[in-house]
Amino acid sequence: MIASTPAPPYYAVIFTSLRTEGDNGYEAMSEKMVELAKQQPGYLGYESGRSETGITVSYWQSLEAIKNWKLNLDHLQAQKNGCEQWYSHYKVRVCRVERDYGFEV
Amino acid sequence: MIASTPAPPYYAVIFTSLRTEGDNGYEAMSEKMVELAKQQPGYLGYESGRSETGITVSYWQSLEAIKNWKLNLDHLQAQKNGCEQWYSHYKVRVCRVERDYGFEV
Repeated sequence: MIASTPAPPYYAVIFTSLRTEGDNGYEAMSEKMVELAKQQPGYLGYESGRSETGITVSYWQSLEAIKNWKLNLDHLQAQKNGCEQWYSHYKVRVCRVERDYGFEV
Repeated sequence: MIASTPAPPYYAVIFTSLRTEGDNGYEAMSEKMVELAKQQPGYLGYESGRSETGITVSYWQSLEAIKNWKLNLDHLQAQKNGCEQWYSHYKVRVCRVERDYGFEV
């Protein structure tokens, strides 16, 4: 759903990807990574949508929290498999959220 | 697809939304907004994916370019209709992209 994040500044990691054909363990890994991310210090939230392109945005308290998540051992294994079999193309963008606003009925 | 963006820093607008039921002119508006955004000064690229949650990320050269796009007259009308009929919930986050990296087979 839409992540409930604190007042800026905070940080976002935009992960955009194109998948290869077939599952090859992707869905199970994806769910596991979300569960692991939620346990990381500084984790704030998560949003995801996929059409032809997939976009996952995770939100974090600090650049340090993002770095620690990047170096998590299970996550490193997922990153390795991602390059080898799940994605034909991906891009990661690390951002500082400067301001936000929204609307809810 | 995945936007081809220049070396950071540049800016990203993360637009996350939950849709209401039915089209109500949404698809036509959505395509028109992408075409209009592409014509705006400072536009760098665009990525989109929708599952239950929809995420659209647009990339821009500067905060000034983002502000000008926000105030575009046709875009203002779309924002108004968005609140009134297309979205039950949305959130906009304006970010500075600090670094990026990727992978392509």
